[in-house]
Amino acid sequence: MADTPFLPDTTDADLEATLAAAASAAPDWADRAPGDRAAILCAVADALEAATDELVAIAERESGLPNARLTGEVKRTSVQLRMFAQELLDGGFLDVVIDPADPDFALGPRPDLRRFQIPLGPVVVFAASNFPFAFSVAGNDTASALAAGCPVIVKAHPGHLETSARTAAIVNRALRESGAPAGTFALISGQDAGVSALGDERIAAAGFTGSVVGGRVLFDVAASRRIPIPFFGELGSVNPAIVTTGALEERAEQIATGFVGSFTLGAGQFCTKPGILLVPEDATFIDSIVEQTQQVPAARMLTARIVDGYLDRVAAASAAPKVDVLVKGEAMPHPSGVAEVSPTLLQTTAENLVGDAEVLLEETFGPTAVIATYRDTTDVRRVLESIDGSLTVTLHTRTEPTGAERAELQQLVRVAATRAGRLVFNGWPTGVAVTPAQHHGGPYPATTAIAHTSVGATAIRRFLRPVAFQDAPAGLLPEAIRDDNPLDAPQRISPAGQSGQWGVNVRG
Amino acid sequence: MADTPFLPDTTDADLEATLAAAASAAPDWADRAPGDRAAILCAVADALEAATDELVAIAERESGLPNARLTGEVKRTSVQLRMFAQELLDGGFLDVVIDPADPDFALGPRPDLRRFQIPLGPVVVFAASNFPFAFSVAGNDTASALAAGCPVIVKAHPGHLETSARTAAIVNRALRESGAPAGTFALISGQDAGVSALGDERIAAAGFTGSVVGGRVLFDVAASRRIPIPFFGELGSVNPAIVTTGALEERAEQIATGFVGSFTLGAGQFCTKPGILLVPEDATFIDSIVEQTQQVPAARMLTARIVDGYLDRVAAASAAPKVDVLVKGEAMPHPSGVAEVSPTLLQTTAENLVGDAEVLLEETFGPTAVIATYRDTTDVRRVLESIDGSLTVTLHTRTEPTGAERAELQQLVRVAATRAGRLVFNGWPTGVAVTPAQHHGGPYPATTAIAHTSVGATAIRRFLRPVAFQDAPAGLLPEAIRDDNPLDAPQRISPAGQSGQWGVNVRG
Repeated sequence: MADTPFLPDTTDADLEATLAAAASAAPDWADRAPGDRAAILCAVADALEAATDELVAIAERESGLPNARLTGEVKRTSVQLRMFAQELLDGGFLDVVIDPADPDFALGPRPDLRRFQIPLGPVVVFAASNFPFAFSVAGNDTASALAAGCPVIVKAHPGHLETSARTAAIVNRALRESGAPAGTFALISGQDAGVSALGDERIAAAGFTGSVVGGRVLFDVAASRRIPIPFFGELGSVNPAIVTTGALEERAEQIATGFVGSFTLGAGQFCTKPGILLVPEDATFIDSIVEQTQQVPAARMLTARIVDGYLDRVAAASAAPKVDVLVKGEAMPHPSGVAEVSPTLLQTTAENLVGDAEVLLEETFGPTAVIATYRDTTDVRRVLESIDGSLTVTLHTRTEPTGAERAELQQLVRVAATRAGRLVFNGWPTGVAVTPAQHHGGPYPATTAIAHTSVGATAIRRFLRPVAFQDAPAGLLPEAIRDDNPLDAPQRISPAGQSGQWGVNVRG
Repeated sequence: MADTPFLPDTTDADLEATLAAAASAAPDWADRAPGDRAAILCAVADALEAATDELVAIAERESGLPNARLTGEVKRTSVQLRMFAQELLDGGFLDVVIDPADPDFALGPRPDLRRFQIPLGPVVVFAASNFPFAFSVAGNDTASALAAGCPVIVKAHPGHLETSARTAAIVNRALRESGAPAGTFALISGQDAGVSALGDERIAAAGFTGSVVGGRVLFDVAASRRIPIPFFGELGSVNPAIVTTGALEERAEQIATGFVGSFTLGAGQFCTKPGILLVPEDATFIDSIVEQTQQVPAARMLTARIVDGYLDRVAAASAAPKVDVLVKGEAMPHPSGVAEVSPTLLQTTAENLVGDAEVLLEETFGPTAVIATYRDTTDVRRVLESIDGSLTVTLHTRTEPTGAERAELQQLVRVAATRAGRLVFNGWPTGVAVTPAQHHGGPYPATTAIAHTSVGATAIRRFLRPVAFQDAPAGLLPEAIRDDNPLDAPQRISPAGQSGQWGVNVRG
């Protein structure tokens, strides 16, 4: 570990140099052909994969997360980079739309208009505690912003500074060796440096994964700037899971096992942890959930601060009126200095959840969940309507619901869709596939930018904005919107004459 | 006019009823098939067109804008509605992405994931002063939000309350008669009612067109809510226009005429008015611009408040150091009570513009512009780098620039693209085509949401957000993401097995 420097807080002078370098790299990085940026992202992916053992060893010590999980996370980090490389080659991210000039346009002659997406400019990324790789230095936010053509300054999470420093060194070396401009990427450290960077006029957007309290402070900084900027924060989520009577008739035991596995995975430190399980009041499988929860060994949490916050919230929820403690977890000292915690399982009614929303319907980050019994779907609806935004809502139903059950579920699905970014059926929300259709987002506080995802191919859209060229001479058109289409990007073309038909097929 | 009621400020009780009705209409309006919403939008368009003469007569008196302009604006308003109807029928706005389950996915088996766009919920629209129809009650924001499936509450602009009330009555009647749910649309009035609506938890987003000061107050309200919401504001823009020596060699007189026409159009009360004309310091066509400006007759402005703001800013700019007044405009009383104003033309150097940015590089809403002389493209670059965001930057070049001129222009185009949402070549920024490729937006303060447009087909994106369905039973899938695709919407499908190739063609 001799080559891993201690990462001190970034000084004002260093931050200024970092911001200046990012601003200076921005036009060059933005101008690189998508294929060039793709090749550079793949070089970063290669370098990270080659350093897996070294990186995992550091992260294991710093985070307490198991080796296999961390090894998989490095893989995921490199796959994310490669997925964005593929998006760059596809060209769909450019969202090219071309309207040729049209003398017969409905409102008089229209000019030639060509629109595509350009990068926003330098981005600050606030790394997460719970994914030392995939949501950290070279994680989703960084990969998608670099792919978009934005330089990135990552503010390291204090929970894994050495992992961050080593990852950043690998990223920087790969970028340098593959020809990215100096200043394309940098790591900073310390809360003050992060807030200063976010407030700096050279920064054009920010990504964040963390707590509601911390994320809101930063969102407010971004919104109150002289020039406000987009702040893509993923804050907190309760991820309710609903189990129907039909689902229990089919597979009660399987659901019990799945639930315990999901809410205790990684010591419950996932943003998609199912914090609430809604079950019919006559459900008989609660005993099995209790038994299985008791078998889950204590696990070290990520940081002492997370332990403190967790224990406070669990104590409040356990002491709330009409809440039964089914399994009482314990916190035990661990050689790392960060406590080991065993899971806590609570029970109440759906009605009581709604009545005590501030204690029971907000996220508790760690290995705990509340089982809430409901009388009917009206109870379930009320719970959904009482939660703030959530990353996910999970529904366990019959594998193929039919008849009245299906009609009732369709109503629940409608309500669930108003509260969440992803609806999971007959599975569990932990485990977020890195794919084009993924949506890891949702209404506030799940995220601060309801239209955007931090996972999956469309995460790149956060760091792009449109620009339209009107009647540009051919020699001044960027490649993306030229008629000969040298980037081979998909182009949506609205032919001249089209507007004459508007409304015709509607009015019959 | 007997049927046009005076529009008093909305009371708290009426606002509460309006918000409750919008919230209650939201699920029903969201669930309507896109084709049904399209037919209803066309019914509204038909009703507005049928009432053109009546509406124009009211608006002429209230706004002082000429009959022909207002008649064209009603047409534009109905064309916008029909364009969104067409977008609904096309289905591209649903942005459907389907990832079939993939057992061989790079990170382990992936589930079946299907994403599409759903409406945000009730929207408040703050109407503009300068377009009594196209950016007002039934304008862009309303049309795009209704198309997206969001109920709309419009806060009327005090400059044309009767026009607003009459338009709203027509819209409401057409919605009712074509079967839209009650509460889909409402008009409110008064600043307090607007701010209260914006702060209400039932409101999911807002649209705004107006001043930087007013827009920023409302943006801050939206951002400081317990649940912050997207605020799509179009605030202010200086719209610099650059003229090269080559362009002057080709067509100096044509440029002079075009410029005077553009900055005085509608008494300079367009958000796209070119407020700055950058010309080579040896340009000889300034005399012609002066002469033509002197010929422009005085025109009544929209409201007394706009006159006051305009005269203050013109006085400050005219008195600024190193600024010459080429044409001194006058303000004269008018029977309407709102003054008539003739254009003011100022001249300075590009260097002085940059040095006095607060006075000279911010929008002045009304018939005035500054001609600024530049020595070289470095001067021009500095001006572009000194302005805040702008809706447009205009470049007048040779029709087909070549050689060194072209290389220099490519650099300017790059810088211009970082400051604006639309680059206009060899034309003028006033006149915003309502088409799929249009982008009427730009960095703050041009807009408060840099990735979005308030004109053109993609304006609908502002009021939508993604939701992903994971492993949903076929019977619970919404129509948009079913395999049999009953809406016939474009679907992006990522075949299983695809991830094995990620990066292959990049790394060679």
